[in-house]
Amino acid sequence: MINEKMRMLGAKRSAIRELFEYGLKRKREIGEEKVFDFSLGNPSVPAPVELGEGMRELLSEVDPILLFGYTSAQGDAGVRAALADYISRLHSFRCDKDELYITVGAAAALTCSLHAVVSPGEEVVLLSPYFPEYKVFVEGCGGVVREVACDSESFHPDIDALSSAINERTAAVIINSPNNPTGAVYSAWEISEIGALLEKKSSEAGKPIYLISDEPYRELAYDGVTVPFIPKYYRNTIVCYSFSKSLSIPGERIGYVFVPGSVSQSKQVYEAICGAGRTLGYVCAPSLMQRALPLCLGLTADVSIYDRNRRLLCERLTSLGFSVVKPEGAFYLFLKSPIPDAVAFCESAKRHELLLVPSDSFGCGGYVRISYCVKTEMIERAMPAFSALAADFGLV
Amino acid sequence: MINEKMRMLGAKRSAIRELFEYGLKRKREIGEEKVFDFSLGNPSVPAPVELGEGMRELLSEVDPILLFGYTSAQGDAGVRAALADYISRLHSFRCDKDELYITVGAAAALTCSLHAVVSPGEEVVLLSPYFPEYKVFVEGCGGVVREVACDSESFHPDIDALSSAINERTAAVIINSPNNPTGAVYSAWEISEIGALLEKKSSEAGKPIYLISDEPYRELAYDGVTVPFIPKYYRNTIVCYSFSKSLSIPGERIGYVFVPGSVSQSKQVYEAICGAGRTLGYVCAPSLMQRALPLCLGLTADVSIYDRNRRLLCERLTSLGFSVVKPEGAFYLFLKSPIPDAVAFCESAKRHELLLVPSDSFGCGGYVRISYCVKTEMIERAMPAFSALAADFGLV
Repeated sequence: MINEKMRMLGAKRSAIRELFEYGLKRKREIGEEKVFDFSLGNPSVPAPVELGEGMRELLSEVDPILLFGYTSAQGDAGVRAALADYISRLHSFRCDKDELYITVGAAAALTCSLHAVVSPGEEVVLLSPYFPEYKVFVEGCGGVVREVACDSESFHPDIDALSSAINERTAAVIINSPNNPTGAVYSAWEISEIGALLEKKSSEAGKPIYLISDEPYRELAYDGVTVPFIPKYYRNTIVCYSFSKSLSIPGERIGYVFVPGSVSQSKQVYEAICGAGRTLGYVCAPSLMQRALPLCLGLTADVSIYDRNRRLLCERLTSLGFSVVKPEGAFYLFLKSPIPDAVAFCESAKRHELLLVPSDSFGCGGYVRISYCVKTEMIERAMPAFSALAADFGLV
Repeated sequence: MINEKMRMLGAKRSAIRELFEYGLKRKREIGEEKVFDFSLGNPSVPAPVELGEGMRELLSEVDPILLFGYTSAQGDAGVRAALADYISRLHSFRCDKDELYITVGAAAALTCSLHAVVSPGEEVVLLSPYFPEYKVFVEGCGGVVREVACDSESFHPDIDALSSAINERTAAVIINSPNNPTGAVYSAWEISEIGALLEKKSSEAGKPIYLISDEPYRELAYDGVTVPFIPKYYRNTIVCYSFSKSLSIPGERIGYVFVPGSVSQSKQVYEAICGAGRTLGYVCAPSLMQRALPLCLGLTADVSIYDRNRRLLCERLTSLGFSVVKPEGAFYLFLKSPIPDAVAFCESAKRHELLLVPSDSFGCGGYVRISYCVKTEMIERAMPAFSALAADFGLV
């Protein structure tokens, strides 16, 4: 019989995807230029030219049997060695090629890691607001989601609340900094506090509680904010990285899991990740894209455009009377809904052809997420609509 | 805590992979030319030149934001339309783009399909000998494997045995023709029989029993044998296809699931496959490779080389006194072990630097699998070793 749980997940797309599809339809109806789509986190700046050039060169020069052939399940050894060397130098933190497992993007990194360290019935703590697919991934491995609200003003972690949420059934905590949807970047001090808490709780539970760090936005931090490298602050950290945003290649699906040697039973955790990959059907990450990675280490797409968009949006929307959480990273602006019901507010925005995502999708009410990985000129064109929306709610 | 089931799957690699790794080590020890590795099913002929050329062109001419961007989860609509049109024409069977779900290879096609139509505790029938990862995939979705032996001479399906194995807990049957490891290609008549049986059993059970057809070797059939298109013979067929072998691109991980309109509640099955993909972390199949597919429809690597290897091996090994199951398709030769213990026979072969996989890995004893997707000249060079092996067992 059809697995009803799977069917529901397939039939009911995420609210973000629904809004995106609505936007496509609306654009066909009234014209591309008249719809202001701030729904998706789809990079709007091109990949570095070195990537495309490097891939063309690989396609011209490497024997196709090798180039398109199976790699080891954990990724090509040479590629892992280059990545490990880069990570070690960048973070001044030892990373060995045999601690890296190359994945089909961050989503695969997360599902493999969760399947590896969560047993059915165990709990995984999510700090709300959070990326809604986390819940799907946790439940997919038989885990139970426990939500902990962030501080309601800063959207940084509330350590006391986190402490209360951890119990003997807790297998892992997922963090995401720079954060989707709030743009918060957790400080070294905050990460230390989380690390100390998890150390204490692990010791009480007599087993490690893993900190799974989802890092697709690592390179997107502004105003000189630094993004701490989490394994330096807590030994049982599993890093899930993606090149989707840094290189503007979200459709190519390439990322990695890093299981540092500091992780308790790190070799066994790594083996379990390999086993999870096998079970889920990940034979290896796409081979051409694996081989292109060493050509792009340290490169990013021109992320200064996101910073420009961020400043522009914050300034203009604040001047219209909206309250925003000033983002320190990622490419999302978290704006306070002028009415408690953010879903209703987003419906009002839609009437001005503004597509904003209500924070309810992220496990917290009262806000909307505005993706600013868009063309700057769309932000300019959207201003009269935002102005009309502000007027609707008596802000101006 | 570490999920022990996953750890075991990661720690204990498949027997095939183990042998392959042994071969790499042995080659370093005694020299590449002195080891005769018949272990892996890794295509040995290059991808069609049109593929590499087409990819270079896409990289030069398409906006990287589009080329590397997210596609719909089920695959780019244009690519699906081109594929659907090709499938419809090739098989004279209606295929709509909304019945296709593009996957990260056949393994993902299988895990998504199994998660979609199997509920925990339900049974999935495998015809032994079978590709060992099927068991991992079935157990990964909470299903229970029920093995049914093929006919012990022909290695074609034993319909009576299949009939006895199906019960009210059966959710699906997996078939794989052309077959890994036996090379059998099931005839239209056999497929009709299986279809009639499943129709009857579905009717008795009051629910559809799905036939999951794993088709990575569809284009590899010899001596004019035709490979029937399974949905023509049984309406509740789900096709899992891969381009790995036909295009010689196993590392690129690209394939699809086709849920024909004839499938009972086909829309719901398709939704469940989408939901399974979401749960397992498959955001979309790699975008560049998706866009390259329409450039390669109807093309294959030069598979005539496999046919040459097949003839050569069958002829030579038979003349040495070995018994073989003459393969009608795929690129594997199933050779009868001269002693009942195929594992011991493979150990003897190893002493002559011949790497053969015992059939025990495939759920059946007494045979070995010889992959002939190798360089023809390696087969020639291996002949003295096969000859010595035959002598060890008194065959010549």
